[in-house]
Amino acid sequence: MIAMLDRSQDGFMQYQEYLELQQCLVAWFNVFHQHDADRSGFIEAQELSRVIKGLFGYGISADCLSTLLRRYSRVLPGPQGDRCLISFDDFVAMSVRLRAYTDAFRRRDQLQHGGGETGQCTFQYDDFLRCVMCL
Amino acid sequence: MIAMLDRSQDGFMQYQEYLELQQCLVAWFNVFHQHDADRSGFIEAQELSRVIKGLFGYGISADCLSTLLRRYSRVLPGPQGDRCLISFDDFVAMSVRLRAYTDAFRRRDQLQHGGGETGQCTFQYDDFLRCVMCL
Repeated sequence: MIAMLDRSQDGFMQYQEYLELQQCLVAWFNVFHQHDADRSGFIEAQELSRVIKGLFGYGISADCLSTLLRRYSRVLPGPQGDRCLISFDDFVAMSVRLRAYTDAFRRRDQLQHGGGETGQCTFQYDDFLRCVMCL
Repeated sequence: MIAMLDRSQDGFMQYQEYLELQQCLVAWFNVFHQHDADRSGFIEAQELSRVIKGLFGYGISADCLSTLLRRYSRVLPGPQGDRCLISFDDFVAMSVRLRAYTDAFRRRDQLQHGGGETGQCTFQYDDFLRCVMCL
Protein backbone atom coordinates (compact mmCIF):
# COMPACT_ATOMS: atom_id res chain seq x y z
CA MET A 1 0.00 0.00 0.00
CA ILE A 2 2.86 2.36 0.79
CA ALA A 3 4.49 1.56 -2.56
CA MET A 4 1.20 2.30 -4.36
CA LEU A 5 1.28 5.96 -3.26
CA ASP A 6 4.99 6.48 -2.71
CA ARG A 7 5.56 8.62 -5.82
CA SER A 8 8.95 9.80 -4.57
CA GLN A 9 9.90 6.09 -4.14
CA ASP A 10 11.69 6.79 -0.88
CA GLY A 11 9.91 4.02 1.04
CA PHE A 12 8.01 6.49 3.23
CA MET A 13 4.47 7.76 3.13
CA GLN A 14 3.88 11.50 3.41
CA TYR A 15 0.83 12.77 5.34
CA GLN A 16 -0.91 13.74 2.07
CA GLU A 17 -0.29 10.24 0.71
CA TYR A 18 -1.69 8.75 3.93
CA LEU A 19 -4.91 10.75 3.46
CA GLU A 20 -5.07 9.55 -0.14
CA LEU A 21 -4.73 5.93 1.00
CA GLN A 22 -7.57 6.43 3.48
CA GLN A 23 -9.75 7.80 0.69
CA CYS A 24 -8.93 4.79 -1.50
CA LEU A 25 -9.80 2.30 1.25
CA VAL A 26 -13.11 4.04 1.97
CA ALA A 27 -13.96 4.12 -1.76
CA TRP A 28 -13.05 0.43 -2.19
CA PHE A 29 -15.05 -0.55 0.90
CA ASN A 30 -18.10 1.37 -0.35
CA VAL A 31 -17.94 -0.18 -3.82
CA PHE A 32 -17.48 -3.66 -2.37
CA HIS A 33 -20.34 -3.15 0.12
CA GLN A 34 -22.59 -1.91 -2.67
CA HIS A 35 -22.01 -5.09 -4.73
CA ASP A 36 -22.13 -7.46 -1.75
CA ALA A 37 -25.93 -7.36 -1.61
CA ASP A 38 -26.33 -10.42 0.67
CA ARG A 39 -23.53 -9.22 3.05
CA SER A 40 -21.66 -12.51 2.59
CA GLY A 41 -18.25 -10.82 2.53
CA PHE A 42 -17.87 -11.78 -1.15
CA ILE A 43 -18.80 -10.24 -4.48
CA GLU A 44 -19.59 -12.17 -7.64
CA ALA A 45 -16.77 -12.49 -10.17
CA GLN A 46 -18.96 -11.38 -13.07
CA GLU A 47 -19.39 -7.96 -11.43
CA LEU A 48 -15.66 -7.29 -11.36
CA SER A 49 -15.36 -5.89 -14.87
CA ARG A 50 -18.00 -3.19 -14.15
CA VAL A 51 -16.44 -2.42 -10.74
CA ILE A 52 -13.00 -1.91 -12.33
CA LYS A 53 -14.38 0.33 -15.06
CA GLY A 54 -16.13 2.40 -12.38
CA LEU A 55 -13.10 2.66 -10.09
CA PHE A 56 -10.29 3.05 -12.60
CA GLY A 57 -11.97 4.47 -15.70
CA TYR A 58 -10.59 2.01 -18.26
CA GLY A 59 -12.52 -1.03 -19.50
CA ILE A 60 -11.05 -4.56 -19.49
CA SER A 61 -11.66 -7.54 -21.75
CA ALA A 62 -12.86 -11.03 -20.80
CA ASP A 63 -9.26 -12.32 -21.12
CA CYS A 64 -7.98 -9.69 -18.72
CA LEU A 65 -10.82 -10.46 -16.31
CA SER A 66 -9.78 -14.13 -16.38
CA THR A 67 -6.18 -13.18 -15.52
CA LEU A 68 -7.39 -11.21 -12.51
CA LEU A 69 -9.80 -13.92 -11.35
CA ARG A 70 -7.10 -16.59 -11.49
CA ARG A 71 -5.19 -14.59 -8.86
CA TYR A 72 -7.93 -12.97 -6.81
CA SER A 73 -10.99 -15.20 -6.66
CA ARG A 74 -12.04 -18.50 -5.14
CA VAL A 75 -14.63 -21.04 -6.21
CA LEU A 76 -17.15 -21.93 -3.50
CA PRO A 77 -20.00 -24.46 -3.77
CA GLY A 78 -23.51 -22.97 -3.73
CA PRO A 79 -27.06 -24.37 -3.92
CA GLN A 80 -27.16 -23.54 -7.67
CA GLY A 81 -23.66 -24.89 -8.37
CA ASP A 82 -20.15 -23.49 -7.92
CA ARG A 83 -19.75 -19.72 -7.61
CA CYS A 84 -16.63 -17.72 -8.44
CA LEU A 85 -16.31 -15.13 -5.66
CA ILE A 86 -13.95 -12.36 -4.53
CA SER A 87 -13.34 -11.68 -0.82
CA PHE A 88 -12.77 -8.16 0.51
CA ASP A 89 -9.11 -8.95 1.34
CA ASP A 90 -8.45 -10.15 -2.21
CA PHE A 91 -10.36 -7.18 -3.59
CA VAL A 92 -8.12 -4.74 -1.67
CA ALA A 93 -4.92 -6.60 -2.63
CA MET A 94 -5.96 -6.48 -6.29
CA SER A 95 -7.09 -2.85 -6.12
CA VAL A 96 -3.76 -1.71 -4.64
CA ARG A 97 -1.94 -3.11 -7.66
CA LEU A 98 -4.57 -2.01 -10.17
CA ARG A 99 -4.52 1.53 -8.80
CA ALA A 100 -0.71 1.82 -8.96
CA TYR A 101 -0.42 0.29 -12.44
CA THR A 102 -3.40 2.24 -13.80
CA ASP A 103 -2.02 5.55 -12.47
CA ALA A 104 1.36 4.82 -14.07
CA PHE A 105 -0.31 3.87 -17.37
CA ARG A 106 -2.66 6.89 -17.33
CA ARG A 107 0.17 9.38 -16.73
CA ARG A 108 1.98 8.09 -19.81
CA ASP A 109 -1.21 7.82 -21.89
CA GLN A 110 -2.09 11.47 -21.15
CA LEU A 111 1.47 12.70 -21.61
CA GLN A 112 1.76 11.00 -25.00
CA HIS A 113 -1.65 12.17 -26.23
CA GLY A 114 -1.78 15.86 -25.34
CA GLY A 115 -3.61 15.33 -22.03
CA GLY A 116 -6.27 13.02 -23.50
CA GLU A 117 -6.76 9.32 -22.71
CA THR A 118 -6.64 6.80 -25.53
CA GLY A 119 -6.19 3.55 -23.57
CA GLN A 120 -2.84 3.00 -25.32
CA CYS A 121 0.71 4.12 -24.59
CA THR A 122 4.30 3.40 -25.49
CA PHE A 123 6.93 2.25 -23.00
CA GLN A 124 10.68 2.09 -23.16
CA TYR A 125 11.88 -1.19 -21.55
CA ASP A 126 13.52 0.69 -18.72
CA ASP A 127 10.41 2.76 -17.98
CA PHE A 128 8.22 -0.36 -18.21
CA LEU A 129 10.35 -2.10 -15.58
CA ARG A 130 10.28 0.94 -13.28
CA CYS A 131 6.47 0.94 -13.44
CA VAL A 132 5.95 -2.74 -12.81
CA MET A 133 8.79 -3.54 -10.38
CA CYS A 134 8.05 -0.79 -7.86
CA LEU A 135 5.28 -2.89 -6.23
CA MET B 1 7.80 -19.37 -10.44
CA ILE B 2 4.92 -21.34 -11.94
CA ALA B 3 3.24 -18.10 -13.09
CA MET B 4 6.50 -17.00 -14.75
CA LEU B 5 6.40 -19.95 -17.16
CA ASP B 6 2.70 -20.72 -17.23
CA ARG B 7 2.05 -19.31 -20.71
CA SER B 8 -1.31 -21.04 -20.97
CA GLN B 9 -2.22 -19.34 -17.65
CA ASP B 10 -3.97 -22.46 -16.39
CA GLY B 11 -2.15 -22.51 -13.04
CA PHE B 12 -0.24 -25.69 -13.92
CA MET B 13 3.28 -26.29 -15.10
CA GLN B 14 3.84 -28.57 -18.08
CA TYR B 15 6.91 -30.84 -18.14
CA GLN B 16 8.58 -28.65 -20.77
CA GLU B 17 7.98 -25.60 -18.59
CA TYR B 18 9.45 -27.45 -15.60
CA LEU B 19 12.63 -28.14 -17.58
CA GLU B 20 12.77 -24.48 -18.57
CA LEU B 21 12.46 -23.44 -14.91
CA GLN B 22 15.33 -25.76 -14.01
CA GLN B 23 17.48 -24.17 -16.72
CA CYS B 24 16.64 -20.70 -15.40
CA LEU B 25 17.56 -21.61 -11.83
CA VAL B 26 20.87 -23.13 -12.93
CA ALA B 27 21.67 -20.05 -15.06
CA TRP B 28 20.78 -17.68 -12.21
CA PHE B 29 22.83 -19.69 -9.72
CA ASN B 30 25.84 -19.69 -12.05
CA VAL B 31 25.65 -15.95 -12.68
CA PHE B 32 25.25 -15.25 -8.97
CA HIS B 33 28.12 -17.56 -8.05
CA GLN B 34 30.34 -15.91 -10.65
CA HIS B 35 29.75 -12.45 -9.14
CA ASP B 36 29.91 -13.62 -5.51
CA ALA B 37 33.73 -13.73 -5.58
CA ASP B 38 34.18 -13.95 -1.79
CA ARG B 39 31.43 -16.63 -1.43
CA SER B 40 29.59 -14.47 1.10
CA GLY B 41 26.13 -15.37 -0.29
CA PHE B 42 25.71 -11.79 -1.53
CA ILE B 43 26.58 -9.85 -4.66
CA GLU B 44 27.34 -6.14 -4.80
CA ALA B 45 24.49 -3.86 -5.90
CA GLN B 46 26.63 -2.04 -8.46
CA GLU B 47 27.06 -5.31 -10.41
CA LEU B 48 23.33 -5.76 -10.88
CA SER B 49 22.98 -3.60 -13.97
CA ARG B 50 25.59 -5.67 -15.85
CA VAL B 51 24.08 -8.94 -14.60
CA ILE B 52 20.61 -7.93 -15.86
CA LYS B 53 21.94 -6.88 -19.25
CA GLY B 54 23.72 -10.25 -19.51
CA LEU B 55 20.70 -12.33 -18.44
CA PHE B 56 17.85 -10.48 -20.11
CA GLY B 57 19.48 -8.67 -23.02
CA TYR B 58 18.10 -5.18 -22.39
CA GLY B 59 20.04 -2.45 -20.55
CA ILE B 60 18.58 -0.54 -17.60
CA SER B 61 19.20 3.02 -16.36
CA ALA B 62 20.43 4.15 -12.93
CA ASP B 63 16.84 5.12 -11.99
CA CYS B 64 15.57 1.65 -12.84
CA LEU B 65 18.44 0.08 -10.91
CA SER B 66 17.43 2.17 -7.87
CA THR B 67 13.84 0.90 -8.15
CA LEU B 68 15.09 -2.69 -8.14
CA LEU B 69 17.53 -2.14 -5.28
CA ARG B 70 14.84 -0.57 -3.09
CA ARG B 71 12.92 -3.86 -3.28
CA TYR B 72 15.68 -6.46 -3.52
CA SER B 73 18.78 -5.34 -1.63
CA ARG B 74 19.86 -4.79 1.94
CA VAL B 75 22.45 -2.46 3.43
CA LEU B 76 25.03 -4.21 5.62
CA PRO B 77 27.89 -2.56 7.54
CA GLY B 78 31.39 -3.40 6.29
CA PRO B 79 34.95 -2.43 7.28
CA GLN B 80 35.00 0.22 4.51
CA GLY B 81 31.50 1.53 5.34
CA ASP B 82 27.99 0.36 4.46
CA ARG B 83 27.57 -1.99 1.49
CA CYS B 84 24.42 -2.42 -0.59
CA LEU B 85 24.10 -6.18 -1.20
CA ILE B 86 21.75 -8.67 -2.85
CA SER B 87 21.19 -12.12 -1.36
CA PHE B 88 20.59 -15.19 -3.56
CA ASP B 89 16.96 -15.46 -2.38
CA ASP B 90 16.25 -11.85 -3.34
CA PHE B 91 18.12 -12.34 -6.61
CA VAL B 92 15.91 -15.30 -7.55
CA ALA B 93 12.70 -13.49 -6.48
CA MET B 94 13.70 -10.50 -8.61
CA SER B 95 14.81 -12.64 -11.57
CA VAL B 96 11.49 -14.53 -11.66
CA ARG B 97 9.62 -11.25 -12.12
CA LEU B 98 12.22 -9.74 -14.47
CA ARG B 99 12.16 -12.83 -16.66
CA ALA B 100 8.34 -12.88 -16.93
CA TYR B 101 8.03 -9.15 -17.59
CA THR B 102 10.97 -9.08 -19.99
CA ASP B 103 9.57 -12.02 -22.00
CA ALA B 104 6.18 -10.30 -22.24
CA PHE B 105 7.83 -7.02 -23.29
CA ARG B 106 10.15 -8.70 -25.80
CA ARG B 107 7.29 -10.60 -27.50
CA ARG B 108 5.47 -7.30 -28.12
CA ASP B 109 8.63 -5.43 -29.08
CA GLN B 110 9.49 -8.06 -31.74
CA LEU B 111 5.91 -8.36 -32.97
CA GLN B 112 5.60 -4.60 -33.43
CA HIS B 113 8.98 -4.20 -35.12
CA GLY B 114 9.09 -6.99 -37.70
CA GLY B 115 10.98 -9.42 -35.46
CA GLY B 116 13.63 -6.90 -34.38
CA GLU B 117 14.16 -5.54 -30.87
CA THR B 118 14.02 -1.79 -30.31
CA GLY B 119 13.63 -1.63 -26.51
CA GLN B 120 10.27 0.09 -26.99
CA CYS B 121 6.71 -1.14 -27.46
CA THR B 122 3.11 -0.02 -27.31
CA PHE B 123 0.53 -1.49 -24.95
CA GLN B 124 -3.25 -1.29 -24.84
CA TYR B 125 -4.38 -0.83 -21.21
CA ASP B 126 -6.00 -4.24 -21.21
CA ASP B 127 -2.89 -5.97 -22.55
CA PHE B 128 -0.68 -4.03 -20.11
CA LEU B 129 -2.75 -5.29 -17.17
CA ARG B 130 -2.69 -8.88 -18.44
CA CYS B 131 1.13 -8.72 -18.58
CA VAL B 132 1.68 -7.22 -15.17
CA MET B 133 -1.12 -8.82 -13.13
CA CYS B 134 -0.38 -12.45 -14.04
CA LEU B 135 2.43 -12.62 -11.41
